[in-house]
Amino acid sequence: MPRDADEKGLTVKKTEDMPEWYSQLCIKAELADYSPVRGCMVIRPHGYAIWERIQQFFDTRIKALGVQNAYFPMFIPESFFKREAEHAEGFAPEVAWVERHADEERLALRPTSETIMYDSYSRWIRSWRDLPLRINQWNNVVRWEVKDVKPFLRSREFLWQEGHCVYETEEQRNKETLLYLDEYRRVFEELLAVPVIKGEKTMAERFAGADRSYTIEAFMPDGKALQCGTSHDLSQGFARAFDIRFLGRDEKKHAPWQNSWGISTRAIGAMVMLHGDDKGLVLPPLAAPVQVVIVPILFEDTKAEVLRGSAALRDAFRDVRVRLDDRDEYSPGWKYHDWELKGVPLRVELGPRDLEKKSCVIARRDTGKKESVTLADAPKRVASLLAEMQRDMLAAARARMEKSMLPVSEEKAFQAAVAAGKMALAPFCGKKTCEEALRERFAGVTSRCIPLDGKAPKGKCLFCGEKALHETYFSRAY
Amino acid sequence: MPRDADEKGLTVKKTEDMPEWYSQLCIKAELADYSPVRGCMVIRPHGYAIWERIQQFFDTRIKALGVQNAYFPMFIPESFFKREAEHAEGFAPEVAWVERHADEERLALRPTSETIMYDSYSRWIRSWRDLPLRINQWNNVVRWEVKDVKPFLRSREFLWQEGHCVYETEEQRNKETLLYLDEYRRVFEELLAVPVIKGEKTMAERFAGADRSYTIEAFMPDGKALQCGTSHDLSQGFARAFDIRFLGRDEKKHAPWQNSWGISTRAIGAMVMLHGDDKGLVLPPLAAPVQVVIVPILFEDTKAEVLRGSAALRDAFRDVRVRLDDRDEYSPGWKYHDWELKGVPLRVELGPRDLEKKSCVIARRDTGKKESVTLADAPKRVASLLAEMQRDMLAAARARMEKSMLPVSEEKAFQAAVAAGKMALAPFCGKKTCEEALRERFAGVTSRCIPLDGKAPKGKCLFCGEKALHETYFSRAY
Repeated sequence: MPRDADEKGLTVKKTEDMPEWYSQLCIKAELADYSPVRGCMVIRPHGYAIWERIQQFFDTRIKALGVQNAYFPMFIPESFFKREAEHAEGFAPEVAWVERHADEERLALRPTSETIMYDSYSRWIRSWRDLPLRINQWNNVVRWEVKDVKPFLRSREFLWQEGHCVYETEEQRNKETLLYLDEYRRVFEELLAVPVIKGEKTMAERFAGADRSYTIEAFMPDGKALQCGTSHDLSQGFARAFDIRFLGRDEKKHAPWQNSWGISTRAIGAMVMLHGDDKGLVLPPLAAPVQVVIVPILFEDTKAEVLRGSAALRDAFRDVRVRLDDRDEYSPGWKYHDWELKGVPLRVELGPRDLEKKSCVIARRDTGKKESVTLADAPKRVASLLAEMQRDMLAAARARMEKSMLPVSEEKAFQAAVAAGKMALAPFCGKKTCEEALRERFAGVTSRCIPLDGKAPKGKCLFCGEKALHETYFSRAY
Repeated sequence: MPRDADEKGLTVKKTEDMPEWYSQLCIKAELADYSPVRGCMVIRPHGYAIWERIQQFFDTRIKALGVQNAYFPMFIPESFFKREAEHAEGFAPEVAWVERHADEERLALRPTSETIMYDSYSRWIRSWRDLPLRINQWNNVVRWEVKDVKPFLRSREFLWQEGHCVYETEEQRNKETLLYLDEYRRVFEELLAVPVIKGEKTMAERFAGADRSYTIEAFMPDGKALQCGTSHDLSQGFARAFDIRFLGRDEKKHAPWQNSWGISTRAIGAMVMLHGDDKGLVLPPLAAPVQVVIVPILFEDTKAEVLRGSAALRDAFRDVRVRLDDRDEYSPGWKYHDWELKGVPLRVELGPRDLEKKSCVIARRDTGKKESVTLADAPKRVASLLAEMQRDMLAAARARMEKSMLPVSEEKAFQAAVAAGKMALAPFCGKKTCEEALRERFAGVTSRCIPLDGKAPKGKCLFCGEKALHETYFSRAY
């Protein structure tokens, strides 16, 4: 709990120093806290409750698609990593190891679970009857290279889900890889009000061991893209390395087709950065642990009635997540600031004069607009305001993002666009070597994705002059 | 998926070789699997779905009691452990460490999170206004001493929840420690149909760093007790070691009062072992991921109608968790065995003759009883059978447990009782030294608990002849 107004509020504006504003916001809104353990963060209840909403939303949807949850060991034998060479090389710099015990194999703390899961899959899958196998786990993973924590965006340990499916046919696999990508889009757009671009990663940005990687990319107010979720068509190298084979309908042995897909607590970071303002968090109603807070205005002589009226209002709001803040030890003003900082979508104020008029005041967190509503109409009005706010937040964010997406057809315009913090859409050859050269020339700029709804490229690759394969987004990124 | 009837069924009987029966059952019913990582297990979807039901049941209840979920780093600095001497000593043998990196402190993988959480608490708690603080986390923990896995009962890494609360007064703390213990009783009795004894641990069996430890103990069919959940009144040593202080209503600094409490995936093991039979799992309906399976009896000429009728039945069972097993590639008999092995509470058989009579057959997994019911009555009958089965399973298990609880008043009777695989209730002095001596004389026997509803002891301590403090349960244990 913050002690006083000074310590409580944000000391920098979002537009002045976004990194500092973001870190202060995560800490002061009590979403997260630093930890004395290097590279690690604590997710506090207010932040974890948002993660639970993401889990609930996504878990319900993937279960309807036939995915089942499971749990695999977090320890991965060193020899497992080495079986898929590209995968091992990709993850080598970030792996943490357990102190070895006598005569036991060296064990890694999972940075991702492909290898440990596919080892089990090789025993579980025998025939086409066992397919599709669709398994997901919600767990913690470790990427040791992180030293300086950025709450939710960078930490050595983080929470995520990883889905790992196995199919009989390439077609079915390809279709579902994109299906899960679209489920990620729904989490971000429908729940978190964060608009995203769905696209394919270029060769240079692919997951270690994938034939194709898909991504959803959001665009932050400081001109950086944020990769929000990925879904991969895995190479059959994994099936070969872990000897996953199935007896097909044709009575012959086949290597199956696999995908893997994940989103993490980073989603909370995207939402915070996109929607927060100088007063604090702004939570989209569907993602908010508390959607409506009732703050009674208490005076000695009318306290009992106002508390009674507030409790009646809370009971009338039974269809939304409501909190009555009847704490005696804080003033209404203190409470307003506190709940604004924490991003609660609607605040309902009820004082003795409101009560006399049988009305209350509703204040909206995103626009700051206030309106007076009769107590009888309040439940309906609260429901409609929550729905409006959810829609408006997404629409406003989408309008801002669209202004940041700039098609360019020559290198000068590209340079100007990325320097101005835009996402430049440029014709690109897709080659790894060309992208590496480009990264050296435009420090910090990387390809973000080839939009799935993109058009055929006009002209040659902007960087090497060879045949362009796709219109591709480039920008700085988190 | 099992390949054929031979490989599929259990090859030993529960009464003949319980440890082997139990391990086979966990593997063949696809609750869990061994892993090539020593000491570790995989929780398969069927097992994990039961864990999700436990989580949902308990999480809803503790949230209603004001508990909030959060997440703390799984890495614990070595220096944190050392701050609470008794705690450090208690956990020393089971801690796994991360390979040290240059100039960073040695880090343990959490065996439990008291120290890392209370370090944060010391920054979050300033005043009585911040109390009570009630935080829970659902996470993975590591106890390295385990070498040989026993699915759900013993593994190096396991899943659990750990609640850690902080209070202004000792009275409030004492009251809530017992409240969470009673919530554990509800999980076991109401959800898992596993009857338990609520009691206090003796001094020798206390948690490292607790003033008092409470437990719920179940009693397994092989004459061993199984500790199912614990709730601890922590010593103020933790508050002192981590410098947790609050400004009281009296404007003075105080050390707060704390408790911690946990249950783990071991709960699944208790349920499996108590209720399983020679055909496989028997799942209490409330804990069952699938409560009712419909098996259509298919012949070429009537296939379409029977499948239509089965689908209509499935839709009529919308209030329960139902699965229609319409797989073409397996026979009805194969399916019966498969679902019996997996413990589904009710099986509904629908063949062409049933359909003609507008009826179906319902078979109950625990008793094996079958009855014919009209299709119109089936949804109501299924609901009532599920409720009956849940009640009956608990009642039957309780009757068996009560027969195993034996009050004894002299050492010979004690020896006979524990040798016969009973839980002996004996007058006991409670002293650590006396209990240590007793353990040497009766190998494998430990005190289980001092029942909370126990009577004053009659006579002297059965083992040392000094003043008896409590009637105390003793038995062999997992």
